[in-house]
Amino acid sequence: MAKFLTNREENYAQWYNDLVIKADMAENSVVRGCMVIKPYGYAIWEKIQSALDRMFKATGHVNAYFPLFIPKSFFSREAAHVEGFAKECAVVTHYRLKNDETGKGIVVDPSARLEEELIIRPTSETIIWNSYKNWIQSYRDLPILINQWANVVRWEMRTRLFLRTAEFLWQEGHTAHATREEAIEETERMINVYSDFAENFMALPVIKGYKSETERFAGAIETYAIEALMQDGKSLQAGTSHFLGQNFARAFDVQFTDKTGKLDYVWATSWGLSTRMIGALIMAHADNHGLVIPPKLAPLQVVIIPIYKNSEQLGKLTVTALKIKSKLEETGISVKYDDRDNNTPGWKFADYELKGVPVRLAIGPRDLENGTVEIARRDTLEKKSVAADSVYKLIPDLLKEIQQNIFNKALKFRDKNTYYIDKWDDFVKILDDQGGFIMAHWDGTAETEEKIKEETKATIRCIPFDTTGKEGKCIYSGKPSKRRVLFARSY
Amino acid sequence: MAKFLTNREENYAQWYNDLVIKADMAENSVVRGCMVIKPYGYAIWEKIQSALDRMFKATGHVNAYFPLFIPKSFFSREAAHVEGFAKECAVVTHYRLKNDETGKGIVVDPSARLEEELIIRPTSETIIWNSYKNWIQSYRDLPILINQWANVVRWEMRTRLFLRTAEFLWQEGHTAHATREEAIEETERMINVYSDFAENFMALPVIKGYKSETERFAGAIETYAIEALMQDGKSLQAGTSHFLGQNFARAFDVQFTDKTGKLDYVWATSWGLSTRMIGALIMAHADNHGLVIPPKLAPLQVVIIPIYKNSEQLGKLTVTALKIKSKLEETGISVKYDDRDNNTPGWKFADYELKGVPVRLAIGPRDLENGTVEIARRDTLEKKSVAADSVYKLIPDLLKEIQQNIFNKALKFRDKNTYYIDKWDDFVKILDDQGGFIMAHWDGTAETEEKIKEETKATIRCIPFDTTGKEGKCIYSGKPSKRRVLFARSY
Repeated sequence: MAKFLTNREENYAQWYNDLVIKADMAENSVVRGCMVIKPYGYAIWEKIQSALDRMFKATGHVNAYFPLFIPKSFFSREAAHVEGFAKECAVVTHYRLKNDETGKGIVVDPSARLEEELIIRPTSETIIWNSYKNWIQSYRDLPILINQWANVVRWEMRTRLFLRTAEFLWQEGHTAHATREEAIEETERMINVYSDFAENFMALPVIKGYKSETERFAGAIETYAIEALMQDGKSLQAGTSHFLGQNFARAFDVQFTDKTGKLDYVWATSWGLSTRMIGALIMAHADNHGLVIPPKLAPLQVVIIPIYKNSEQLGKLTVTALKIKSKLEETGISVKYDDRDNNTPGWKFADYELKGVPVRLAIGPRDLENGTVEIARRDTLEKKSVAADSVYKLIPDLLKEIQQNIFNKALKFRDKNTYYIDKWDDFVKILDDQGGFIMAHWDGTAETEEKIKEETKATIRCIPFDTTGKEGKCIYSGKPSKRRVLFARSY
Repeated sequence: MAKFLTNREENYAQWYNDLVIKADMAENSVVRGCMVIKPYGYAIWEKIQSALDRMFKATGHVNAYFPLFIPKSFFSREAAHVEGFAKECAVVTHYRLKNDETGKGIVVDPSARLEEELIIRPTSETIIWNSYKNWIQSYRDLPILINQWANVVRWEMRTRLFLRTAEFLWQEGHTAHATREEAIEETERMINVYSDFAENFMALPVIKGYKSETERFAGAIETYAIEALMQDGKSLQAGTSHFLGQNFARAFDVQFTDKTGKLDYVWATSWGLSTRMIGALIMAHADNHGLVIPPKLAPLQVVIIPIYKNSEQLGKLTVTALKIKSKLEETGISVKYDDRDNNTPGWKFADYELKGVPVRLAIGPRDLENGTVEIARRDTLEKKSVAADSVYKLIPDLLKEIQQNIFNKALKFRDKNTYYIDKWDDFVKILDDQGGFIMAHWDGTAETEEKIKEETKATIRCIPFDTTGKEGKCIYSGKPSKRRVLFARSY
């Protein structure tokens, strides 16, 4: 066990924070709420970007870039949007500094005040729809299927590395369509892309569903989300896709001529996924030894560590290690040979476990004699000795197996911690004792939702797409309910 | 000729602007000085990013991400840096908006004033070196070889799409080293990476050299730059690499213990290349028909256009076209088959010329009969009929040839427009008549440099690395000069 990590079972929040810092993923910066994403954390983000970007392009999307700044007045255009986003944000009021008259440092130049304040984008619907206005005249200009990779800022009061930071990195898709049906289809397509990504790359089982009205994106008609269960029994929203109806088209007066020559407002969607996912990756899979990174997102998939007593031994081990490295790399596997002489093999073992590298190979002089190598997998911590020349065939399969096993473990955990509850006392007790996903009936009103939240801190995470329509009675009010919804405490 | 473009020879600036807009590269946004990079322009940026990122990683660098915001006081820490960067910048003073008391829109909440104003990064040396302070204790922590892909903001008064915008995208490398020699080596390595990229991907011949003290990066001991000649005879700085000495380490108190146990300040470099390069790409190669994109950076390398009278013909042409498309794609070439029925082939020809697609294939019914296809190259506008089954071999070679030809043409243009001048009258006349690169002697003083700038608007673009040490007399003052330097008017 990595001794410098707080025990996960004793203090989950502290364990998480320790791990992010010790595994060199990120750290708090001097600017309140803003993190520095360190190279190892950023390498995982690059893997996430690369996989998602390919999926976006395969579904017909292209990338573009819109301004960081949004005129303040834009937020007032869409009534719900202003309530949701114009509150806690970074406001640019001036565009120049000057030398202090006392000669000590620099001050804001009061004469360089902007006529209209600029807001650092918390999300880009407004600035983008203001552009789309000029791009769309006819149905022939539709659909527009654009994604943007960008930084956004939401002035959060309580921040946590990756999970909630004032500035974060994300992608935001913003599409424009000629019909309601097409926009809904796009909203569904993208929540499916997200769940595909979550399950097949992040090894994270998710539940897809609608958000209740209270939990919807500010300005959306319908928000679809994927929800994942973390190891402490809390839910994490891992991606959202919004059907925006004609709300933003109306707010920015974006009309088009349809095939029959009639003018209508354009239909919209937006969808986003952020660096928060790195937090989810950690909280879903990591353990008291450190990170457990699914092979498909691991910056480094295999590490080779030599065990030697003198430089003659090291020389021989290096020949074998480099041969293994280059042959594995030919098959597209990322491999590092760590022959640094300033740390013991034991220290290195612990360090790569902390970093969550999926497969570790160790070779010592006896292995050379016997033609063997020790192979250890991070997910189960199992190790065994195998024939050295079997690793080329073995490791690609092992990486697939590890990817699947991490997913299976998370799925098993979720299944074990998902409860179908019909009594209010059980509902409260489960939340207080162990947390988890609770599938319970709800009467469909915002009032009941609010009261449940007040009394238990649990919210409706989503109304799952695939619950069958079995009727029942609301867990709280006893009123009729059409189907069960997913309750949990959440990040 | 694309009729809607201003003629390049008549009004170069207007031609450039027309082209950026008409080719759907970018447009001005509603926010002063900030552009929207449209999908076609952004696709070129993605190609640039991908090529550079591979080169950075091949030279041992990793990516990371630092905050958008920099505390105001950080700029005062490095004396030269504050003069260069703390002037025109976006200043965040507040972190909240609230509903206006009159009920009309939203206003800045005066109670949410930041204790210390935050500056949107114009460049990140300060915030990064403030982080490095905690990362570096011993020589074992060095070197740090980090790059960041990010947006930055410099509140420019006069902006032009891609060339000079308030917000732009770039990469900024920030490295930390144990010795002066190692840092200088890194500074040189990166200017070589940039010139390699410019010449081999952008097809842009560049001159590498030192900046004069006046033109140096604020805070640098030495700035290396690559300079490229645009078609209007002006120079464009296409990338810079700075040796920062120990300036930022001193400013942020970053010391390390060297191998002998002695404390010393860390040595630094930084280097950057921005979306400005897209402006250079346009101004170096495009013509009155539109963009000319070097194949290695072309989002689309080959377009296939069917020429038909009825749907039966189209059906047959489509079979052949899709076969060509998929076989070319197998070799990694990007191909689009444009069978849209709402535009004529002639319109499409002009549109793909405007967009600078390197190779166009056209197929009509007669081609089907004869087993031929018409192949046209964008760089020379030549076209010829070839056997349809020869294109698989022909096109990969043709793309290489086009890449080389675009470079050769630019090099020839530069050679023709580079003058070795010894008389002041000639110097002035050339700048006024046709512009170009002028290699002339300079006495090495800032005073002379300033006077030449005042009288001619020409500046020292760089002191080329590879000028031989032939002595002479300063073009302006007549004082002794050790070697020729590169003068030009510039973007």
